[in-house]
Amino acid sequence: MNWTEKDNKLIGEFVFEDFSQAWAFMTEVAILAERKNHHPDWTNLWNRVVITLTTHDEGDIITEKDRKMADGISKIFERYQYRT
Amino acid sequence: MNWTEKDNKLIGEFVFEDFSQAWAFMTEVAILAERKNHHPDWTNLWNRVVITLTTHDEGDIITEKDRKMADGISKIFERYQYRT
Amino acid sequence: MNWTEKDNKLIGEFVFEDFSQAWAFMTEVAILAERKNHHPDWTNLWNRVVITLTTHDEGDIITEKDRKMADGISKIFERYQYRT
Amino acid sequence: MNWTEKDNKLIGEFVFEDFSQAWAFMTEVAILAERKNHHPDWTNLWNRVVITLTTHDEGDIITEKDRKMADGISKIFERYQYRT
Repeated sequence: MNWTEKDNKLIGEFVFEDFSQAWAFMTEVAILAERKNHHPDWTNLWNRVVITLTTHDEGDIITEKDRKMADGISKIFERYQYRT
Repeated sequence: MNWTEKDNKLIGEFVFEDFSQAWAFMTEVAILAERKNHHPDWTNLWNRVVITLTTHDEGDIITEKDRKMADGISKIFERYQYRT
Repeated sequence: MNWTEKDNKLIGEFVFEDFSQAWAFMTEVAILAERKNHHPDWTNLWNRVVITLTTHDEGDIITEKDRKMADGISKIFERYQYRT
Repeated sequence: MNWTEKDNKLIGEFVFEDFSQAWAFMTEVAILAERKNHHPDWTNLWNRVVITLTTHDEGDIITEKDRKMADGISKIFERYQYRT
């Protein structure tokens, strides 16, 4: 699993072969975020993406929305790992 | 192989699980195209992408640039097929 | 206006400065399409994007869904025209 | 100007109307970064993007590569500001 809890936030770190793949992953997550209307706080440096999830509307705590989003992101990431 | 030749063009057809994956694939191809400065003529409808390659500067014929681009695109697509 | 009707389809053509801007426009349209769950049939060649809208579920006719999507796309495009 | 210098880094902060526009901006910057092979360290939260530029290969100092990238990013951002 890619997620840890810290300071009422779910934090996931994801590593890819290169920027192009990291960016494709981020593109899928962006579409998911917009569809769910629940947007991550995220950071990218070349092949590395760190995603932080918390529910601002509930006072910055981890809610069911964050857990579902984390599951969706993990499912997207899983497919990138089959890549050689 | 995903490519066929027709009317001095290389044509490839690529099918995905859904729009989100087709779009992630297109995003990787867009970055490759910009890096190579060789842009495809392409069409998308939901989970389906059709890519046509030809070298306009050489009078719309298939050149080495097109074959290399086709190889690069096939390599990107290959990784999407490991996805379940 | 960028849209014409032909064979029960709404067709729009959009021209940009370069591929990078055409791609940014397409990215915004992709997110809108996924949010509305109504996806265009579209074609891109470098700085040019042609978008065809029709409602497949209603037997390939133009419906209110297409007109709303066309309005949303026009609104996105409008902002690109202020660019120098 | 959107850039400040701090700890041998160029830092720029960019605010947009919504996530969709922030994402379109990031997409243009991603393509520029890949073309220049000079990638930012960047963070996004909904309509806000913070970009940090430094040259890792030169020992994490600000070089001409960073200043040129900052100029390119500012030029992209400028066009988003004409939007209403």
